[in-house]
Amino acid sequence: MKRKPGIWKGRTTMEKIAILGAGNGGHAVAADLGRQGYETSIYSRSAATLEALTARGGVAYTGCFGEGFSPIKTITPNIEEAIDGARIIIITVPTIALTWYAHLLAPYLNESHTVMLNPGHTGGGLHFVQTLREAGNAKEVRTCETITLTYGCRIRGPALVWIPLAMTNLRLAAFPGKHLDALFPTIHTLFPNVVPGTNVLETGLTDLNAMEHPPGMLLNAAWIEHTKGNFRFYFDGVSPAVARVIQGMDDERMRILRALNERAGLDMRVMSFIEYFYEAGLTSRAALESGDMYQALQESEPNKPIQAPDSLDHRYVNEDVGFGLVPMVEIGRWVGIECPTTEALVRLACVMMKRDYWHEGLTLAKMGVDQVPVERVGEFLWEGHL
Amino acid sequence: MKRKPGIWKGRTTMEKIAILGAGNGGHAVAADLGRQGYETSIYSRSAATLEALTARGGVAYTGCFGEGFSPIKTITPNIEEAIDGARIIIITVPTIALTWYAHLLAPYLNESHTVMLNPGHTGGGLHFVQTLREAGNAKEVRTCETITLTYGCRIRGPALVWIPLAMTNLRLAAFPGKHLDALFPTIHTLFPNVVPGTNVLETGLTDLNAMEHPPGMLLNAAWIEHTKGNFRFYFDGVSPAVARVIQGMDDERMRILRALNERAGLDMRVMSFIEYFYEAGLTSRAALESGDMYQALQESEPNKPIQAPDSLDHRYVNEDVGFGLVPMVEIGRWVGIECPTTEALVRLACVMMKRDYWHEGLTLAKMGVDQVPVERVGEFLWEGHL
Repeated sequence: MKRKPGIWKGRTTMEKIAILGAGNGGHAVAADLGRQGYETSIYSRSAATLEALTARGGVAYTGCFGEGFSPIKTITPNIEEAIDGARIIIITVPTIALTWYAHLLAPYLNESHTVMLNPGHTGGGLHFVQTLREAGNAKEVRTCETITLTYGCRIRGPALVWIPLAMTNLRLAAFPGKHLDALFPTIHTLFPNVVPGTNVLETGLTDLNAMEHPPGMLLNAAWIEHTKGNFRFYFDGVSPAVARVIQGMDDERMRILRALNERAGLDMRVMSFIEYFYEAGLTSRAALESGDMYQALQESEPNKPIQAPDSLDHRYVNEDVGFGLVPMVEIGRWVGIECPTTEALVRLACVMMKRDYWHEGLTLAKMGVDQVPVERVGEFLWEGHL
Repeated sequence: MKRKPGIWKGRTTMEKIAILGAGNGGHAVAADLGRQGYETSIYSRSAATLEALTARGGVAYTGCFGEGFSPIKTITPNIEEAIDGARIIIITVPTIALTWYAHLLAPYLNESHTVMLNPGHTGGGLHFVQTLREAGNAKEVRTCETITLTYGCRIRGPALVWIPLAMTNLRLAAFPGKHLDALFPTIHTLFPNVVPGTNVLETGLTDLNAMEHPPGMLLNAAWIEHTKGNFRFYFDGVSPAVARVIQGMDDERMRILRALNERAGLDMRVMSFIEYFYEAGLTSRAALESGDMYQALQESEPNKPIQAPDSLDHRYVNEDVGFGLVPMVEIGRWVGIECPTTEALVRLACVMMKRDYWHEGLTLAKMGVDQVPVERVGEFLWEGHL
């Protein structure tokens, strides 16, 4: 199944692919694309993060792709060097860092670039483009995004990444949406696990991490703080009562999607958490058929062994509340759907972490849609502006 | 320190004291009053609950009053028999049961009775009187209440109660408030640990249980469900993040008190959780001086050994949310104070327990104050009506 470069339909020359961010996701993308024979560059704003990669000249991997080593042609903390000659730029950073990356890239991006946010989380792509524009970039940059990282993966040693699974049926949406048809074949060649999504709100509003992580963290706060996370996060940490909160949030999420479809004449799929979870290869057929949230989470074999974080000060709260739940509540407000359960978790997170996630998270203004009437959202998502 | 009956100032004959409810609190009150030489009756709506007491003719006790046995003259599931000849009636039941008791007592109570709710929780006394009125009782029954039970206590065997501590400086308020001066000496003779409170809102808005229990339960949901409560509830279960939620709720509670004082010209004490907690003998002087919620809860020696409940379906949620947090939020709304942290916990409790605590809990209407303008609340609390 090894793919050779240069076989993309309509292309005859190989293109360099730039990977920005050298955390778990950046390591995994470099490993996978290298494994497939692509030429890659990798950038990190922290030179220290790159040391091990530089020392080995690439990244080793284990997991669902077997064992191997992928060379990386350019390993650099210099953004110009990283993106030089690359028309495909894959950003694999926490969404909390996207503002910073948009400012970094604003001077360089233009209509020739395709930027993939891997992942974009909820509203991350809209926020990224809005920040580019605020930073003075008036070009129509083609962006696309998935809701979650294309792999389950963890760095396991110096320049060594473990990739236990590739997500399946992961929706990819573009902004402006009109570019999806042109983009999709390219991205699908790189990531055969993506399927086309309707628009970035459809993908953004399927944020499974935001549904799972904050309840698992906040509703087990003292357990995490007392034991430093010494329990299985998704298995022990999601009891029937916690699963009911996740279900409550999921009901609100689906109400928002339905209201958007109705008010804006859109045709986004309204799928439940359990349906997505099953589609992504994360739970059993029996759980899907039961429709029971607790069963779906208990029967997630890939998630089962994962330990809880050792502190609440973790991206499961800081990212998934501010860049998952806050934009969900904001979009809900926009379409007139109340989200009391989701709001309750945001509020508790603010009090527990002494942070104002309402302010630091993704508001409608940061996503660039506060002036967009809900009725015209379809046009906005397609054209990239009104 | 044993007190003899018949020594109350202005009284020359001994009066029978009726105790309604035969749970932890009923056992402890019967033990303590019996120990002091008073004649008591005890009522339970469940005959089975009374069997052990009947078999022994009273209740044995251990703890802060030493070891002993208190005879109980009348042990009965018949309310007429229980209150016959008693002018002092002490109700020691969960506030969730007060509606039922108000209906039970409505045909019998009149101006000659003093009813003590031990405890009344938040708004329980107002609710009790409002229910009496709705049940057709137009008499001016004298009621009084404490916010929490006058003892720490647990039934430890058949007709055996363990009373590790008597609360200290527990405020007692009357409704109508004008009767406090007349009531107080009598109640103080029975319970030397009470001090006079300003009114039932002052006592009602010092609900330490409502501040501690729901966060401890809901923010450790899976820990409780996974281990069946196998951790120390107040000690392990209140981590720094959980303490910050308690602090957030306490700030809201104090804002309500201040707003009531300002808008209604009242003079209720605005004391913090930590100050009450220290006054009640539940934490250290160092914690009081630090003003730190986490320290105050960690340094509560009486609470430290107490294990968590084995299930979320417990009065720490069902009573403390519906009859502690809901009336707090309602009173907040009444005076224009938002309580987002407290509301967040109520919302989560509703989702987790699949119950509508907003509906089943104490609303302004159930407390009989929904038609009372905030500016006239002082007059209402004093007179018992407008």
